[in-house]
Amino acid sequence: MNQQSAPIQRIALQLSRLPGIGQKSAMRLAYHIVSLPEEQVHDLALALWEGRKAIHFCARCGNYTEDELCSICADPERRADQLCVVRDPKDVAALERMRDYRGLYHVLGGTLSPMNGVGPDQIRIRELLSRLSSEPIQEVILATNPDIEGEATAAYIARLIKPLGVRVTRIAHGVPVGSDLEYADEVTLAKALEGRREV
Amino acid sequence: MNQQSAPIQRIALQLSRLPGIGQKSAMRLAYHIVSLPEEQVHDLALALWEGRKAIHFCARCGNYTEDELCSICADPERRADQLCVVRDPKDVAALERMRDYRGLYHVLGGTLSPMNGVGPDQIRIRELLSRLSSEPIQEVILATNPDIEGEATAAYIARLIKPLGVRVTRIAHGVPVGSDLEYADEVTLAKALEGRREV
Repeated sequence: MNQQSAPIQRIALQLSRLPGIGQKSAMRLAYHIVSLPEEQVHDLALALWEGRKAIHFCARCGNYTEDELCSICADPERRADQLCVVRDPKDVAALERMRDYRGLYHVLGGTLSPMNGVGPDQIRIRELLSRLSSEPIQEVILATNPDIEGEATAAYIARLIKPLGVRVTRIAHGVPVGSDLEYADEVTLAKALEGRREV
Repeated sequence: MNQQSAPIQRIALQLSRLPGIGQKSAMRLAYHIVSLPEEQVHDLALALWEGRKAIHFCARCGNYTEDELCSICADPERRADQLCVVRDPKDVAALERMRDYRGLYHVLGGTLSPMNGVGPDQIRIRELLSRLSSEPIQEVILATNPDIEGEATAAYIARLIKPLGVRVTRIAHGVPVGSDLEYADEVTLAKALEGRREV
């Protein structure tokens, strides 16, 4: 005999496909959802579906947007001579939270990963080169993640665009602010030492 | 300037209303959801909305069901002489997981909580009394939670139905199986000692 009725199981199955939601949390959420007023579940379902339908990629940088251009590309006050290259739209959001960077972005939509069949043609590198030739970009900041694939992608792009005479930089690696040296791994500590600056 | 476009914010806002999903997880989930294929988001939204619409309370026991009676009440093999009283439909699911209990359930839909304005008329006690007079019930097992409200509710119901000549029992309190005595609180330990049995 089934312990839960089919609609609850169906909700839980769908929720358990989301990252960070295990089977137990999914079931707990499913029970919560069927206990909510119908309007509230309607609003939730509608937000998911209409939100997904409304979102597509910015024609210029590849960020998420509901318009032709994302709000950053459409902002005339952003510096057009700096371009920050990231993997995902959520990396743009992370960098924007800092409120410090005033240039533009280029979202690759992935990182090079030969093991998973992701080569230069599967991420937006061609679009990056085309922007370098058509936009007044003077510096490309490589802000892919500090992991193996992110480093490889940064190195690949650097090799590709340095000959074009544009300045290419990589974000600094080091000990996170507010953290404890004791808990930093060796590679991060080595990078922090290597990147040390005069005070 | 907004860091995220409106649809993503709207998804995150709706998700952050669910229990156990904070603002950061909600935003992470929202970014994941807009990155999914449209069909997958459609399935998720539809499961939530149709699941909520399909679910209502079992006319007999108050459990969640999509039919007139829940699968337990509709099962002719369940013992009709035992009735287990619980607070929520999810407590039914928890007890069913044990696969040991073969009687029926009665879901109160809450516990007495005078501070929150929940009196005997706000939970399904009247329905319980009516079942006791119309069904061949010989034992009522009070399985409300072992917290203040659950205990008060169990005590209230016991006082109400003992005069009717039905056997009234309460689930045992004690040390959870597989746990460590060291981490059990004093009240639980006292209950475990009080409820000791011959071996």
